[in-house]
Amino acid sequence: MTVTVGVVGTGSIGSDHVRRLSARVSGARVGAVFDVDTARADAVAAAAGARAHADALDVVDDPAVEAVVIVSPGDTHAALALACMTAGKPVLCEKPLATTGIDALTVLAAEVASGRRLVQVGFMRRFDAGYLRMKAALDSGAIGEALVLVLHCIHRNPAVPPAFTSDMALTDSVIHEIDAARWLLGEEIVGTTVVRTRRSPFAAGHLADPQLVLLVTGSGVVVEVEVFRNCRYGYDVRCEIVGATGTVSLEVPTTGAPTTGGVLGRAVPADWGERFGGAYHAELQQWSTACGPAPWPGRTPGTGTPPPPSPRPTSGR
Amino acid sequence: MTVTVGVVGTGSIGSDHVRRLSARVSGARVGAVFDVDTARADAVAAAAGARAHADALDVVDDPAVEAVVIVSPGDTHAALALACMTAGKPVLCEKPLATTGIDALTVLAAEVASGRRLVQVGFMRRFDAGYLRMKAALDSGAIGEALVLVLHCIHRNPAVPPAFTSDMALTDSVIHEIDAARWLLGEEIVGTTVVRTRRSPFAAGHLADPQLVLLVTGSGVVVEVEVFRNCRYGYDVRCEIVGATGTVSLEVPTTGAPTTGGVLGRAVPADWGERFGGAYHAELQQWSTACGPAPWPGRTPGTGTPPPPSPRPTSGR
Amino acid sequence: MTVTVGVVGTGSIGSDHVRRLSARVSGARVGAVFDVDTARADAVAAAAGARAHADALDVVDDPAVEAVVIVSPGDTHAALALACMTAGKPVLCEKPLATTGIDALTVLAAEVASGRRLVQVGFMRRFDAGYLRMKAALDSGAIGEALVLVLHCIHRNPAVPPAFTSDMALTDSVIHEIDAARWLLGEEIVGTTVVRTRRSPFAAGHLADPQLVLLVTGSGVVVEVEVFRNCRYGYDVRCEIVGATGTVSLEVPTTGAPTTGGVLGRAVPADWGERFGGAYHAELQQWSTACGPAPWPGRTPGTGTPPPPSPRPTSGR
Amino acid sequence: MTVTVGVVGTGSIGSDHVRRLSARVSGARVGAVFDVDTARADAVAAAAGARAHADALDVVDDPAVEAVVIVSPGDTHAALALACMTAGKPVLCEKPLATTGIDALTVLAAEVASGRRLVQVGFMRRFDAGYLRMKAALDSGAIGEALVLVLHCIHRNPAVPPAFTSDMALTDSVIHEIDAARWLLGEEIVGTTVVRTRRSPFAAGHLADPQLVLLVTGSGVVVEVEVFRNCRYGYDVRCEIVGATGTVSLEVPTTGAPTTGGVLGRAVPADWGERFGGAYHAELQQWSTACGPAPWPGRTPGTGTPPPPSPRPTSGR
Repeated sequence: MTVTVGVVGTGSIGSDHVRRLSARVSGARVGAVFDVDTARADAVAAAAGARAHADALDVVDDPAVEAVVIVSPGDTHAALALACMTAGKPVLCEKPLATTGIDALTVLAAEVASGRRLVQVGFMRRFDAGYLRMKAALDSGAIGEALVLVLHCIHRNPAVPPAFTSDMALTDSVIHEIDAARWLLGEEIVGTTVVRTRRSPFAAGHLADPQLVLLVTGSGVVVEVEVFRNCRYGYDVRCEIVGATGTVSLEVPTTGAPTTGGVLGRAVPADWGERFGGAYHAELQQWSTACGPAPWPGRTPGTGTPPPPSPRPTSGR
Repeated sequence: MTVTVGVVGTGSIGSDHVRRLSARVSGARVGAVFDVDTARADAVAAAAGARAHADALDVVDDPAVEAVVIVSPGDTHAALALACMTAGKPVLCEKPLATTGIDALTVLAAEVASGRRLVQVGFMRRFDAGYLRMKAALDSGAIGEALVLVLHCIHRNPAVPPAFTSDMALTDSVIHEIDAARWLLGEEIVGTTVVRTRRSPFAAGHLADPQLVLLVTGSGVVVEVEVFRNCRYGYDVRCEIVGATGTVSLEVPTTGAPTTGGVLGRAVPADWGERFGGAYHAELQQWSTACGPAPWPGRTPGTGTPPPPSPRPTSGR
Repeated sequence: MTVTVGVVGTGSIGSDHVRRLSARVSGARVGAVFDVDTARADAVAAAAGARAHADALDVVDDPAVEAVVIVSPGDTHAALALACMTAGKPVLCEKPLATTGIDALTVLAAEVASGRRLVQVGFMRRFDAGYLRMKAALDSGAIGEALVLVLHCIHRNPAVPPAFTSDMALTDSVIHEIDAARWLLGEEIVGTTVVRTRRSPFAAGHLADPQLVLLVTGSGVVVEVEVFRNCRYGYDVRCEIVGATGTVSLEVPTTGAPTTGGVLGRAVPADWGERFGGAYHAELQQWSTACGPAPWPGRTPGTGTPPPPSPRPTSGR
Repeated sequence: MTVTVGVVGTGSIGSDHVRRLSARVSGARVGAVFDVDTARADAVAAAAGARAHADALDVVDDPAVEAVVIVSPGDTHAALALACMTAGKPVLCEKPLATTGIDALTVLAAEVASGRRLVQVGFMRRFDAGYLRMKAALDSGAIGEALVLVLHCIHRNPAVPPAFTSDMALTDSVIHEIDAARWLLGEEIVGTTVVRTRRSPFAAGHLADPQLVLLVTGSGVVVEVEVFRNCRYGYDVRCEIVGATGTVSLEVPTTGAPTTGGVLGRAVPADWGERFGGAYHAELQQWSTACGPAPWPGRTPGTGTPPPPSPRPTSGR
């Protein structure tokens, strides 16, 4: 009655996923892990009661593993996703799906050829309560027959490691806004402009930070994004959909704090874990439930065949 | 690796608990249920893959059941909790623990005599992120060496069924504020005054609503509570701790909504499920983990003895 | 075309009133002042182009003075107000009107005997934009046919001088809530209970602080007030009207501040001047306009008789 | 002791200015007005106790008029401002100063040649409490040594008349953001890009609405502006300054409203009068005080020369 998951990559997000799947997600357990840092992999495996493999592909091929989560570096994603499809196992692949267009298209073609929907990209914002309320408000027609004119987005992190590049600000950060825009608006991006602004003194010399990105959709909606990876003060993701008769904004989840010395007590999230922990949890729970023979609500357990994750909660495509 | 839970009572909260334990709480499953409405019990049991018993005590005594959740009417709680202790099974008992003082003391004495801490009362607010942040702020000394002077509390529900009485406003609603005050302040209530105010036209003829309640603690803190069970506009629970150098307030979790026609879009929770769903989930997860041989983090599985839920996440006493 | 005002008392609020009347209120000038601190009076008079008198009654009787503002200590108010009525001059008397019931009744009787409405008490909250919006919302029937059930009020100051007494917390602070309740609800207070709570370590030994006050109106509305004169963190006045179908709250005017280091930037008012400066201004402007031959909107200037301030903007009775 | 003002243009803002100067600004009165709608001019003049002239230049040349406010259509501003300088009278000119660059430079050259600072452009945002707090926060170094990286601005009005053009969105609306950026940042705009987005169905056929405008300053700060003149839901002006270590936002002045039916009660401003009435008032008061021999604080009255408005509160240049 439990789906056994293999996890490739046990860094900060990876080990967080292992913890959730082991102790907080219903109907899931972690059976195998891999990390290039074998000591870290061993420790995570021990705590989870799982096996640590010496190779990522061994996790995919482990007979006990029924579904795979990919949390390794981005340039390994495409090959691992292809291996999962070859093994016929559902895979939750953290973004990006691939680091080149050709690799992404290869994965896509392989999935189409397989005739089954096995790959989900980890766009956790689609599982965030605030984003879901925005989408519901938009779809209700409340801001003007769903006629969107402009999207404003802000994506700020307190700091990044030195190796972070200007391109990664787009492929690792703005990729979330690209997915959110496509999901919210139901249409494709057809144009992009990147505008560089005055540089933060906290950005490494090679890094343009912040950057403004203007995306245009097929119907002419302009999606305006500020990405700022060294904002220092906190983790701050915002979004506003401007419609013809009103506007709806993503909730900014400040939390209670003491009011003293003339300052009203409200704290901003410190990092992605605080801001999107609930979304990651919902994503893993829904994906695990879709992968496995969970008894609720009304699934047919014990069919013996590899679990078709249908209906899948979301798709990154 | 999974604790099997019996649930007595499958009304609105009871069936919600069954759903969570079956499909969203890690390391738990529901093995048996009971409800006086046998059709409802059967439906809930079928969906959860559980057995429906003809008597509440059969759930307690079912050999497959390792731990029990009591969600039946308040006047049945004490006897069921005693039965669970006789059976040596951990029990999560929704509030109130009992409807008379003597019954509550009897349960307490039985637990003390058993030498084991088997009973937890379902004060879910202790698991609410906002309450936990208030307590952390208070304990940090940020509002004045934890020297509390006044607590303001508000407890409003949109409506109640006709059978709801003035006393139940205290034993079913204000009981949450009594527990919260004891938990936040770490001291006992030593005095109580109830003040009746102008009556809502939506209150049944026998019901004093709203009421103000003043509680006094041993050290002289006054806890001022408004309980209003027919406020119509939403579900609204508030709390402010006034300290010597500052104040900290419970977050009021309004959610995003469209801004149109001159009105800023913010919605208030509709009911307890929306407001405290996350707290109920955290409570059930922690209780299940404490009851069962969950592999994470660092518990010793398979000891064979009835699982001592220690350290228990909270206690209603 | 300008009304000449005499001001008795040039302390912090008094000199603020002189400044407003001299430089920011249309159609007013200050002609004479008095203060027991003659040096202070001289300085204020010089800056305002006014005359400093050696006796408070000389201000009242100064032939150039057409209207009087009383900002001296509370126990001098009644005698000065009587003197103004004898002189036939309109008077804006800061609260309290008197420090004993018999004195207040004497002033009231004198005004009734005069046949003219010459006395206005300085309840500036009636001129605060937030209070006016609350009252408009209430009177519109939006929260239930103006059927009020409970009022919650908070009145906090950062600190008080050592001479401040427990009684003054009622006669100098809660008097604002008493007036606000009568004004908002349109009915009289018929009962009062004062509840003492744990004492702030910053309160002088003789001072009960904070205190809770429960007022009851003729129709049974309970007005619950926390008065706290040593709250340290800022100047914080709150009010919520609970109606049968909804609630309306006084705006809490936090102001923008930098968001840095994980703390959302919002500041609370530091003192009464920041919080109620706009209300004092509106009060003085309306009172001056009512007193004088202001050309707008549509008054009849130059009638030669002492200006009957009718319609008076508010009354403290 | 009172400065006599002439007002050219008595439309909605013009008559509002006349009302303020006549009844709410200290030390000012309106002596003469003009409007092409002579009936409207006569009515406004009668209410203010002023004279209605048959020609705008007669207002400027009226010997009783000491200072002039220009509120006529934008293409008349430059000629009127030049006439005021010829007459040696201070002038408060509503934006724009001129509708062509050459006209604006002509006015500027004339003022420089006069050797006196007689012209102030009506950029009232510099007098808004929220903008002033942002500037103070920025100048304090709190968000990173005043090192600004990005400015985000939003300028939304509920609706515009049919004659409003796409260019006017820039010269009549975004001109405020241009001035605010120059004032906040203390540097000049050196580049501009206008981006058209999907068009509102409420915009006239010839009107691009909304539009996004990207301004770049000399140091490389990007100022991103959304201007939307048919947003329907209210009047909404926002601004956020993103610095190297933090951010500061313009307060969004929502006001209290009833909380009923699940909706938290907060209203957004309906129009410019509600949003910026206080700023217009402060602007007129400071300008009048600077123009006239006001007795407070410490000006030297009665010098006989035309009043040099120095130090001027702000400048549009």
